[in-house]
Amino acid sequence: MEKSSGQSKRTGRRPGATATREQIAAAAREQFSALGYERATFRAIAASAGVDPALVVHFFGSKEKLFREVMELPPAVSDALVRVAEGPRDDMGRRLAELIVGALENPATRSIVLGRIRSASSHPDAAALVRETVTRDLARLAVAVTDDRPETRAVLIGAEVVGVALARYVVLVEPLASLPAAEVVALLAPTFQRHLTAPLGD
Amino acid sequence: MEKSSGQSKRTGRRPGATATREQIAAAAREQFSALGYERATFRAIAASAGVDPALVVHFFGSKEKLFREVMELPPAVSDALVRVAEGPRDDMGRRLAELIVGALENPATRSIVLGRIRSASSHPDAAALVRETVTRDLARLAVAVTDDRPETRAVLIGAEVVGVALARYVVLVEPLASLPAAEVVALLAPTFQRHLTAPLGD
Repeated sequence: MEKSSGQSKRTGRRPGATATREQIAAAAREQFSALGYERATFRAIAASAGVDPALVVHFFGSKEKLFREVMELPPAVSDALVRVAEGPRDDMGRRLAELIVGALENPATRSIVLGRIRSASSHPDAAALVRETVTRDLARLAVAVTDDRPETRAVLIGAEVVGVALARYVVLVEPLASLPAAEVVALLAPTFQRHLTAPLGD
Repeated sequence: MEKSSGQSKRTGRRPGATATREQIAAAAREQFSALGYERATFRAIAASAGVDPALVVHFFGSKEKLFREVMELPPAVSDALVRVAEGPRDDMGRRLAELIVGALENPATRSIVLGRIRSASSHPDAAALVRETVTRDLARLAVAVTDDRPETRAVLIGAEVVGVALARYVVLVEPLASLPAAEVVALLAPTFQRHLTAPLGD
């Protein structure tokens, strides 16, 4: 794609800067998800994106800032979470399971979820992001469904997601690691349904 | 406890060797649980146990061997898991929840569980230990309860335990992090009961 358009202006940003930036972001997500925050390096991220490490610094500043920026969940996902409450009540667990398994099966969102989880134990920002997803996004959903301890329901769902994500994609516990996505949805749906709508506790 | 008994023999092991060994093991569990396998060092483990790093090598050999040895679950815990199947069927979820929350509230077993989970993403041995707990210990329990996909049930329970352990003790997601243990038992019991005895999936 050399000289792709005749209109490149000397504005200080190279033409293609957005594409390069997104390439670096994708490489960073991969690294954070595969190695966790501590072990991911600018050098390896740059190598995997095929750019000079200085360019990573140029675009994102510090490793902290890079992490925060590339580990944001797409607004589409957080918005979809609260909209799970909008459909029929009987079917909420299934809709939530479809949304979450869908996000985990998508490589980009999976990298974000796993990158947060794997970094959360060593990196306070990552822990804050995991907490925020539970106490903001999942809690918004639970609050829309019930006023009986919605925050507790949100954390039960969040814990389930974290456990299933680690078991299926990182630790590779069978048979979960090899099940088709649709079966994982079917397994999670009734648990989510209970966490959202059944009386809590025994 | 200097000179605790008059019978110390010159067998090549110092008197008190067992106590020292156990001190090192406890320090190692702490480190693996706080930092994960990669970031734990012989030097820091030795410092926290108050011994020379050479003594850690003397007792345990390599970091691999140290990890494997100190991260074994006490047989009492794995035996208790399968015995959950022995009592009344209606109450199985609660007995399992009591056993697991009890193990997590005990600092020594909690270090083992968290050390395995936190190391599992970067260290194949740790991942193998996590898989083994699910596919051996939890599966033995599930097989004793039902012949309807017991391995799948075991991994659902295992994922739940991993998620709750991370949320409550590592990422500190509220309100789960601050709930009394008895309430955590009450929250987990019905989910475990379903995973063990209800039809799977929706």
